[in-house]
Amino acid sequence: MSDLAAASRILVDQGVFDAAGHVSARHPHDARKFLMPRSLAPALVTASDILELTLEGELSDANAPRPFIERHLHAAIYRKRADVMAIAHGHSAAVIPFSLVRTPMLATYHNAAFLAAGVPVFDIRDRFGDTDIVISSPERGDALAETLGDKAVVLLRAHGFVAVGPTIEAAVFRAIFTEVNARVQLQAVALGGPIAALDDEEGRQADAINLATVGRSWELWKKRVMP
Amino acid sequence: MSDLAAASRILVDQGVFDAAGHVSARHPHDARKFLMPRSLAPALVTASDILELTLEGELSDANAPRPFIERHLHAAIYRKRADVMAIAHGHSAAVIPFSLVRTPMLATYHNAAFLAAGVPVFDIRDRFGDTDIVISSPERGDALAETLGDKAVVLLRAHGFVAVGPTIEAAVFRAIFTEVNARVQLQAVALGGPIAALDDEEGRQADAINLATVGRSWELWKKRVMP
Amino acid sequence: MSDLAAASRILVDQGVFDAAGHVSARHPHDARKFLMPRSLAPALVTASDILELTLEGELSDANAPRPFIERHLHAAIYRKRADVMAIAHGHSAAVIPFSLVRTPMLATYHNAAFLAAGVPVFDIRDRFGDTDIVISSPERGDALAETLGDKAVVLLRAHGFVAVGPTIEAAVFRAIFTEVNARVQLQAVALGGPIAALDDEEGRQADAINLATVGRSWELWKKRVMP
Amino acid sequence: MSDLAAASRILVDQGVFDAAGHVSARHPHDARKFLMPRSLAPALVTASDILELTLEGELSDANAPRPFIERHLHAAIYRKRADVMAIAHGHSAAVIPFSLVRTPMLATYHNAAFLAAGVPVFDIRDRFGDTDIVISSPERGDALAETLGDKAVVLLRAHGFVAVGPTIEAAVFRAIFTEVNARVQLQAVALGGPIAALDDEEGRQADAINLATVGRSWELWKKRVMP
Repeated sequence: MSDLAAASRILVDQGVFDAAGHVSARHPHDARKFLMPRSLAPALVTASDILELTLEGELSDANAPRPFIERHLHAAIYRKRADVMAIAHGHSAAVIPFSLVRTPMLATYHNAAFLAAGVPVFDIRDRFGDTDIVISSPERGDALAETLGDKAVVLLRAHGFVAVGPTIEAAVFRAIFTEVNARVQLQAVALGGPIAALDDEEGRQADAINLATVGRSWELWKKRVMP
Repeated sequence: MSDLAAASRILVDQGVFDAAGHVSARHPHDARKFLMPRSLAPALVTASDILELTLEGELSDANAPRPFIERHLHAAIYRKRADVMAIAHGHSAAVIPFSLVRTPMLATYHNAAFLAAGVPVFDIRDRFGDTDIVISSPERGDALAETLGDKAVVLLRAHGFVAVGPTIEAAVFRAIFTEVNARVQLQAVALGGPIAALDDEEGRQADAINLATVGRSWELWKKRVMP
Repeated sequence: MSDLAAASRILVDQGVFDAAGHVSARHPHDARKFLMPRSLAPALVTASDILELTLEGELSDANAPRPFIERHLHAAIYRKRADVMAIAHGHSAAVIPFSLVRTPMLATYHNAAFLAAGVPVFDIRDRFGDTDIVISSPERGDALAETLGDKAVVLLRAHGFVAVGPTIEAAVFRAIFTEVNARVQLQAVALGGPIAALDDEEGRQADAINLATVGRSWELWKKRVMP
Repeated sequence: MSDLAAASRILVDQGVFDAAGHVSARHPHDARKFLMPRSLAPALVTASDILELTLEGELSDANAPRPFIERHLHAAIYRKRADVMAIAHGHSAAVIPFSLVRTPMLATYHNAAFLAAGVPVFDIRDRFGDTDIVISSPERGDALAETLGDKAVVLLRAHGFVAVGPTIEAAVFRAIFTEVNARVQLQAVALGGPIAALDDEEGRQADAINLATVGRSWELWKKRVMP
């Protein structure tokens, strides 16, 4: 199983993806292309389901199976962020509440250090009015990528989240701990009073450790989905 | 396994049904009849447990096994709503709270778009006073169907919910995301402040997408219960 | 597997018991005796682990394996309540909060109808001052049984709950839905405002239905623990 | 499988550890040494992954595989607390909120009796300013051990918890019930009003019972991870 197919199944196994969600990676040999599963439930993805797309969101092979319409979400971020090598997009029940209210998501612990720099919220209504919520065009993708800015995660109002990273492992790690962080923060809010989350500098330092040690978690996660 | 038996097991597998709950479908060749499992825990339903009933809630075959008493809930909705082809009824722990308080259920994200038109609550006391809560007669069924109106979901006070749809797949999808939506909204309420849920028009547009793509989720859900 | 061993495993499988908890039954042929597993994690109980005890909490067979110290909890209730044929005692995380605060447990839906008559809380400090919390003597058992009164469930402060019933199936059903009810009520409280729980008469009527149909759930629960 | 490897897997199986977390034990024959897995996801630990370290956090065998950097957390506590024979450190999502707010963790029921003496919170900023949060040096370990004092559990702000005990079984028990206790207290706080937790004396008495009966739980927990 390729790492990208494994990533897809890992995010299901870890409770981040349900019957939907997709993870992509920039092409390792051509920065103007990216790889992404065909339109399929993420638990079912295998290496043979991976499609090659251009940064305009077009299939490299016109005879390939049907891609996800939200390939435009991925393409736009790869266009705008040269540092991004992998992207995960899902609809975790614990994360969505933070897309609906004004409480900003904080970095509640070291594993979620990548959130300390801030977590913007993209409201598709601001630019496009009433829609079907889907990031189904280059324009919608560009607007989302703009809101993401230089951050690691962006929330999509009434929709879900996007996590990006310098490797597939890092994007998966960030998707997983965005979900855990949401659960932690929800509970901290319920306890009441100020929350002593990671500050910017703690976040930067802890994120460096996480990126250096992500292989230890990845080894386990991959083993669980490759019996 | 028939799609109706699969639907029953899917709703258990997805955590919507427990030891109770039932899903039915209008007869594909006779709109004056519907199909529904005999009185049995939904995890155990097979194709051979499916009964045929008239829209009056009578068994087509008088020698058939014992039906659920709540066949009257299904029959009444099929009588009133010609557009409804499938119905799911369950008692999810996350949904029941919304049947007990005045907080209306909102459509917190695109998968729950079918809730944006509003989610009425049926209180059996309003018409029938103190009862055993069960929808055990045509009269109780009619009252419930009236409260449902033209909506996709109705909550039953201190009891559970009913989700309806134009196909078995759609009714199952709506039952699943009614449950997820309840969890999301509970958490959004806990965070405090206004909730930027889907508005009516967003709901209409997103629901159309969901109905068009429900097959992708159904494929996975069915695979999980047919090993 | 005897029904009592099945009951023990069912309550683990349904998330009500963890590594502790015990369920007992009055002896079917001698109302002055009861049956209860030896001191053992409930997931491991088999028919050969069942001990016979007198209503004084003494082993019928002095050479039998070590019983639970909390046999005194069971014995005292059988002494006081001739109608009780089975008892379950556990420490579910969702239930304990209601033993710690002044919010009374309500019957939030039909499956929890047996709670509508009221759920007393036993605080061992009231009679015994500072203790190890364990119901480890006939006196402590009597005090608990007195607080239980004629109800179906009693909560033990900072400890857990006891559910009783006219059959093993009923006691198991009540233990399971005490736990689910706790989760439902916690969420309803979080939503805010008054809670339209079952009233006394609704509780009585719905409980009668539950007792008449418990076999349907039991069939499934037993199947799950007897592969 | 050694008890220490079993302990590691038990804490995963019980939902206390995720892809990280580690448990150690003082060397049974040399109180100046301790045993701890090499840097590895805790679900994967076997007896052959256990390293021997000095109380200064140095490997006994310079050719041994790479240890966890947080060996310094363990070493410092063994240095300071002669009574401690085992230590567990993890990042449970339910526990972290209590490290972020001013609500002290209480002993909500008998299984968590070891918390009744108080649960200090270690904020690494107090002594070291902005860091990567990791207990990666003897100095950080000493500061943590000082905050732990004579207690059974210390919380680490925006990081996790440490539980200690007189045996491996006890440390595992305390790690598990620290996590459960956090969930119970979160729900009790949500219900509102004062919380009738265990007082000091109740905690002392109940803890003695727990330590005497931990074998019953351990038997089950070990069985689950040794199929």
